[in-house]
Amino acid sequence: MMETHVVIMAGGIGSRFWPMSTPQLPKQFVDILGVGKTLIQLTVERFAPLCPKENFWVVTGQRYVDLVKEQVPQLFDDHIIAEPQGRGTAPCIAYACWKIAQKYPDANIVFTPADALVIDVEEFRRVIRAALDFTESQHSIVTIGIRPDRPETGYGYIAEGVKVEGTEICKVDSFREKPSLEVAKEYLSQGIYLWNAGIFVWNVDTITSALRKHTPALAATMDEMSESFYTDKEAEVVAELFPTCEKISIDYAVMEKADCIYTLPASFGWSDLGTWGSLRNLMQQDEDGNAVVGENVRLAGSKGCVVHTPGLSKVVVEGLEGYIVAQHGDRLLVCRLEDEQNITRYVSE
Amino acid sequence: MMETHVVIMAGGIGSRFWPMSTPQLPKQFVDILGVGKTLIQLTVERFAPLCPKENFWVVTGQRYVDLVKEQVPQLFDDHIIAEPQGRGTAPCIAYACWKIAQKYPDANIVFTPADALVIDVEEFRRVIRAALDFTESQHSIVTIGIRPDRPETGYGYIAEGVKVEGTEICKVDSFREKPSLEVAKEYLSQGIYLWNAGIFVWNVDTITSALRKHTPALAATMDEMSESFYTDKEAEVVAELFPTCEKISIDYAVMEKADCIYTLPASFGWSDLGTWGSLRNLMQQDEDGNAVVGENVRLAGSKGCVVHTPGLSKVVVEGLEGYIVAQHGDRLLVCRLEDEQNITRYVSE
Repeated sequence: MMETHVVIMAGGIGSRFWPMSTPQLPKQFVDILGVGKTLIQLTVERFAPLCPKENFWVVTGQRYVDLVKEQVPQLFDDHIIAEPQGRGTAPCIAYACWKIAQKYPDANIVFTPADALVIDVEEFRRVIRAALDFTESQHSIVTIGIRPDRPETGYGYIAEGVKVEGTEICKVDSFREKPSLEVAKEYLSQGIYLWNAGIFVWNVDTITSALRKHTPALAATMDEMSESFYTDKEAEVVAELFPTCEKISIDYAVMEKADCIYTLPASFGWSDLGTWGSLRNLMQQDEDGNAVVGENVRLAGSKGCVVHTPGLSKVVVEGLEGYIVAQHGDRLLVCRLEDEQNITRYVSE
Repeated sequence: MMETHVVIMAGGIGSRFWPMSTPQLPKQFVDILGVGKTLIQLTVERFAPLCPKENFWVVTGQRYVDLVKEQVPQLFDDHIIAEPQGRGTAPCIAYACWKIAQKYPDANIVFTPADALVIDVEEFRRVIRAALDFTESQHSIVTIGIRPDRPETGYGYIAEGVKVEGTEICKVDSFREKPSLEVAKEYLSQGIYLWNAGIFVWNVDTITSALRKHTPALAATMDEMSESFYTDKEAEVVAELFPTCEKISIDYAVMEKADCIYTLPASFGWSDLGTWGSLRNLMQQDEDGNAVVGENVRLAGSKGCVVHTPGLSKVVVEGLEGYIVAQHGDRLLVCRLEDEQNITRYVSE
């Protein structure tokens, strides 16, 4: 009988969500939705009934370790896995898996981003449990695929293949990059394409074997690092070896190469909360399509805006259509929603 | 030989300059121009060479007395004249004049708003000195008239009459309310209309006599109040009597009725700094007509805006034309410049 573990990947910087998200305080550590909880706290809460709190792990950047301790105080200190620098999702996942494997060789693991949003949490848990049931007895990798309700161009897609009899799980036919609008419309009409939510379910033996097979250099580095795990030397050894890993995503390293890849098509109301526009789409809107987080926000002659000013006591927005107005700390953004992909560039200039 | 005194009227709340100007901290107490000095401090500085600091007075609301002490520390405590409530400019001026008269019967006085802007300060001082020279020997009221350079609809106008020989001072033909654009254009083309800057020069005997003649009830109240002046009882007596004064402007009470009214037409670069648009007109603009006060303001695809975010460390404004973006404390405004007259309404709702 395997034990369920949950690994939350919390290393991103969420630069398209400036000014709320900054390198000092990325969006997963922010109460984006104005509900009194940060995204990582909502993620922990979503998974909490699936396994004891002793089985939670967070992978994050070295600089965010204190934030994780503060926001997820129930986490064991040695379950915070600190990357000395970001090297993509494959080294991130490998480090976590090697470390878990050493102490919990029977771990059956869900990997999840820290910053996505789920509406129907009960259905979400049912889906994750079904995927965990599958990988408990199968040498398989299951990705959660979201049934699309619009031709979204901001996500990668999964083409579903043959169904596994007696389950709701299918073989993956192929992974597809973020499409053009035309292609996304075609995907939507064909009905076999799913959004890739970046949620992976596998047992620890499956994923370490796959990494050994497809990325032997990475596996060798992990073997070398593993002697220091759970000792005083871990930070030092990892600081030396981890940055030598090839920078590579788990999709490219494993998912597109291995042959035991499955997907569980699901519908539980999901968003990667990647941009201000995605936040607006999810939020309750007034009759003019404005979505507001903040106190005393007075909108006049404004339509289709997202206003996010949680720290302010009084805001007046007049005569804007289709804009982001966001204020956080001592930073302010006013930007057309249609230009939101440029935010990262404006901020870095 | 008369003594020059300067009375700064600092009782307004500047609601069209929200969010920088608030009832708690009206614009005269704010560094609107981002020069390191507030408007009242700039006003004091502008008049400083005209008379010793012992001859400065400030009339303000009771709640602003501490702000005045803090920002104009050189002022004598009993030269801060505190109105228990605003009753218009006539009671404001009467209170100051009765109080000054009691101690300085030979005072020759300039009354000035605290929150106007003057570009050519040397010329301004020359003009004020010329007006003071006139009222030193004449039983006259001199208003400063600004030669208009555009058909401004936001100011009242003065029609100049016959010139006083050997001076640059003219009789006032009439005062005119804020005109429509059409009328303002007509005024500009006729060449005899001046903007009313709200700066008055008179000796204390002239103005008290005029008030006694045209507003006897107000004068009687002042006589009653004056027994308490410079005593421990002043605040109490004024709190009781001042609110009983009729609410009336000096223009209506005296200027439009008295027959010794003159104007000195002048050009020293003046603005009443009444609105965000007036501030933008005065500020240096980039090649797209944007005027900015603030650090690290990144403007992209934006034209004709005024951005005022002095307390923020980073601001991005994208895709706006002809807007105000102003952030102060925990308040934020985004509003079309052409709708700036509505700001007061938006804020009060």
